[in-house]
Formats: sequence, structure tokens, C-alpha cells
Amino acid sequence: MHVSARIELALDAALALGEREGHPPKLAQAMRHAVFPGGARIRPTLCLAVAAACGDDHPALADAMAASIELLHCASLVHDDLPCFDDAPTRRGQPSVHRAFGERLAVLAGDALIVLAFETLGRGAAEAPGRLPGLVSVLAAGVGMPCGIAAGQAWECEPRVVLGDYHRAKTGALFAAAAAGGALAAGADARAWRVLGEQLGEAYQVADDIRDSAATAQWLGKPSGRDLALDRPNITREQGLRHALGHFADLIAQAQQSVPPCRGATGLRRMVQRESERLVPKALLEEWLASAA
Amino acid sequence: MHVSARIELALDAALALGEREGHPPKLAQAMRHAVFPGGARIRPTLCLAVAAACGDDHPALADAMAASIELLHCASLVHDDLPCFDDAPTRRGQPSVHRAFGERLAVLAGDALIVLAFETLGRGAAEAPGRLPGLVSVLAAGVGMPCGIAAGQAWECEPRVVLGDYHRAKTGALFAAAAAGGALAAGADARAWRVLGEQLGEAYQVADDIRDSAATAQWLGKPSGRDLALDRPNITREQGLRHALGHFADLIAQAQQSVPPCRGATGLRRMVQRESERLVPKALLEEWLASAA
Repeated sequence: MHVSARIELALDAALALGEREGHPPKLAQAMRHAVFPGGARIRPTLCLAVAAACGDDHPALADAMAASIELLHCASLVHDDLPCFDDAPTRRGQPSVHRAFGERLAVLAGDALIVLAFETLGRGAAEAPGRLPGLVSVLAAGVGMPCGIAAGQAWECEPRVVLGDYHRAKTGALFAAAAAGGALAAGADARAWRVLGEQLGEAYQVADDIRDSAATAQWLGKPSGRDLALDRPNITREQGLRHALGHFADLIAQAQQSVPPCRGATGLRRMVQRESERLVPKALLEEWLASAA
Repeated sequence: MHVSARIELALDAALALGEREGHPPKLAQAMRHAVFPGGARIRPTLCLAVAAACGDDHPALADAMAASIELLHCASLVHDDLPCFDDAPTRRGQPSVHRAFGERLAVLAGDALIVLAFETLGRGAAEAPGRLPGLVSVLAAGVGMPCGIAAGQAWECEPRVVLGDYHRAKTGALFAAAAAGGALAAGADARAWRVLGEQLGEAYQVADDIRDSAATAQWLGKPSGRDLALDRPNITREQGLRHALGHFADLIAQAQQSVPPCRGATGLRRMVQRESERLVPKALLEEWLASAA
């Protein structure tokens, strides 16, 4: 089965867990709204790519880990869009969850998606429980304290923040979890794979900063120029577009070099290249350079 | 070690996991504010009491499960107090988390506490991983969809709600998880113990309704009369105080009868009796009856 089909099926199966008898219907709708239609699903794709490179001896567990990673990513978007944070009216080209369902259901949808992520992982590990403690730990490190997504968002509430620490927590940590989790789900050593996730996560964040500064809202599917409007750290604002683009290219090269020796190494490096071109398309760059000229 | 000392130590150890190098300090403070000083810690007490009755062959795992249950309870209080829900200014006699730290850190503290609960459980199960899938499932059922705390809060957003379903989800589910989790952590069958948790949870909710209607803010440590002010379902409003008190007594009796045969049965029944008298003190009742006369 194609990777993207595996991911969508695993996410649908996860959400179905919450839609068993007796559930409140609006919360179930809000959770589906947060997860479908998806974005690029880059994190679960990375997770499954690493699992495949490591032999993927337990595909149901790799699917569960990939779905859990994406559920946590979606949960963080729902809460990040709330009025007290970004107050984003749209996400992925449709109304944000709090605009469509109200603020209370948006808070609850985020909470329930976090819980569902761990539940999904636990179910996926029913036949390989020995791998579950490590996977739970990897998942928690990606989203919790001290250096996961919630910690990253919390740096926005501190008077002083080191840009690298902020990005590593807000974005890099879940990418690292995706790579490490893919390896662990396949029974491999997670440590060798974390660097790939960390570099790719940082590249993704730098690309996001570039796009926020350079892109139009129509192209992004969400408002652009939000970092400036919300006075959030952004590498293009702080160090200029030229520096940001160079840094992005370095990170992609480092990510490719970090792939440990394995049968699927060439395929993985190719995937990283494809992602890099999707993240910072040539057309967007040329348009921005023309308008800045 | 006394049960309450075990619980406080386990909670402190859990929070310390998030306070490792590189954490954002305000979020760590907000999480501690949400957890300490505690309330009655009735859910983790129940969890450890059941584990003890079942032999408590793995105390570190029982401690982890008890702490996880309480962390999830605290997370739900933080989010339930948010402006979009109850907008509660105080909790346990001190400012609510969003009043003390702002709304953004309150959202993040709830999120990070949910993640920390699963992380704590995963670490506690490192030496008994075979028990972890069941424990994760029990924990998720207590707080997620379709019938856990988040589902219970979501019923407040539906046009029609059955009072029993609402209470079972919002309160009963985590009590059931505490009892079932205590048994599972000790390697026992969870099913026989769920009823104790369910009955005690419902009794607790009925007591909360009675207290909200009858008590003073000073006595509760939080504002009273909130259900009326917020138009939330409350059994004393809907069926009268006399009915609510009778129902409470029935539930306590059923909880005591549900304790499965085991060495610690008498002690557990005594604990339930003590809890019942703490929940609805005679003094409070007499005061209310006098003022209503």
C-alpha cells in the first residue's frame, strides 16, 4: 500500500476509536475537522520512511506511531490557532477549528487528540509491548516538556528566547520523534536517526519563516505575515532572506548526510530532496525576488 | 510510606521530568501551580488503595499510574477554568492558572500535563512493559473520547444531554480508570474493580452538585453556585436536594458492596465511608437545612 494511503487509513482508524457508542457528536466532528483534509503529512511520512529503511517488521506499530505523531501535530495546530495565541481564522484553506466549532470545542478537540495519540500508540503496540515504553517516551519528548511542542509555544511567553531553542522545541522535536519513532517501531536503535529528524525539522521551520515572510495567503492556505503581525521570532526578519535561504540549503544537505547506512538510504535521501523542493518552491522564490527588486 | 506521601512524591517526580535542562520556566511554574497544593487526591488514593488490595507487586508502577491519574485530573481543571469554559477566578483557594499565568500558559499547562501523564506511566512501566498497553488504554478511556473527561466537557456544548451520561463521562470515567488502573498496575483483572470506581465517581459528582448548591465559596475554595450561573446540569436543581442526598447515600452503599473479595476489602470499604463523610459533611448539611427552613 502507498505510504500516503497507509497514513490516511491509520488516522481514520484512530479517530474511529473516539467515535464509538456514546460519544458527543460535535467533538467528534471537530476532531475530524482538525485532521482531515490533511496537509503534507510530512511527519508521518518521515516516520514510515525510517521504519521502512529499518525493515518495518511490525507495520501495524509503525502505522500507529505515524498516526500518533500526526494527531499530536494536528492538536498543536488547533491550540496554536486559538484566540489567545494566533487567533488564526483559517488553516489548510478551511476555517480553523475554533472558528468552525467555537473555542470550547477547539480546546477539547486538542486535548482529546493528544489523548487519542497515546491511545492509538498503545493499541498498536498490543503485540509488541516491549517497544511501547520507548515509543511513549519518544512521543512525549516530541510534544511535552522540557523541549517539545508545548515547551516551544511556551517560549513565546518568555521575555527572552534563543531562536534556535525555540525552533528546536516548537518544530524540531516532533520531527526528531517521527524519525526516532519510525526506527523504534521497527525494532531499530532510535539514536542514529534523531539527527535526520532534527535537521529536517529545523529546515521545515526555516522554510515556514521564509514562506510567512514571502508568500501570499492564497498560496499558504493560511494568513501570511503572521509572525510580523504577532511579533514572533522569524529568521528572515532577524537575519535577512539571503541568510535564511542559505541556512535552509545547509540543513537539507546535513539531513541527507545524516541518514545512517541502510538498504533504504538512497530512497530516504531522495525523499528529503523532494520535500525540500516542496517546502521552498522555485516559483515562490523567483516571485519574491522580483517583488523585492 | 503513607499513601498521601507516596502520591505527593510521585507527582513531584513526574513534574521534575519536565523541568530538565532547557525548559521554559513559566510553563514549569504554571504546571506546578496546577498540581500543588493538591485537593483531596481522592483519585490517586483510590488507585493505590485498589493496588494494595490486589497485592501491589510493583509499587513503582502503581505510583506512576496514581500520579498519571492525578495529573490528568489537574489538566482538566486548568482547561475547565479557562475563560471560554467556567472562567473561574480561583481553584483550591488560590488563583486559577490562567489568572496567575495568563490564558496561553494555562492552555499549554493543560496540554503538557496530559502528555506528562502518559510519559510518567510509560516510565513507570519500563520493567513491566506487558502491563503498559492495558494501562494506557485505561488512562485514555478515563479522559478522552468517547466517554472520558473531554467527552464529558463536550456534552456541555450539545443541545441535548442525558444527565447520567454527562456525569459518567465528566467524573465517573476517571474514577473508574483509577480503580481499574490500580488493579492492572498490580497485575490483577481490572474488570472486577471498575464498578467501585464508577459508583464512587458518580457519588462524588452528586456530592459536588450538592456542595455547589449548598456551600459557601469560602468553604469550597472556589466560587459556589457556578452551575446555576453557568446554566449547567445539576441534580439538586433538577430533582431537589432530598432526592440528591438519597441518591448519594445509595451510591456509597453500592460502592462498598462492589468491592470484590480480597484481603483488603474491609479497609477499602472503610476508606469509602471516610470519603463519603468528607464529601458531604454533616455540618454542611445541617447548615443548609437550617437556612432552607
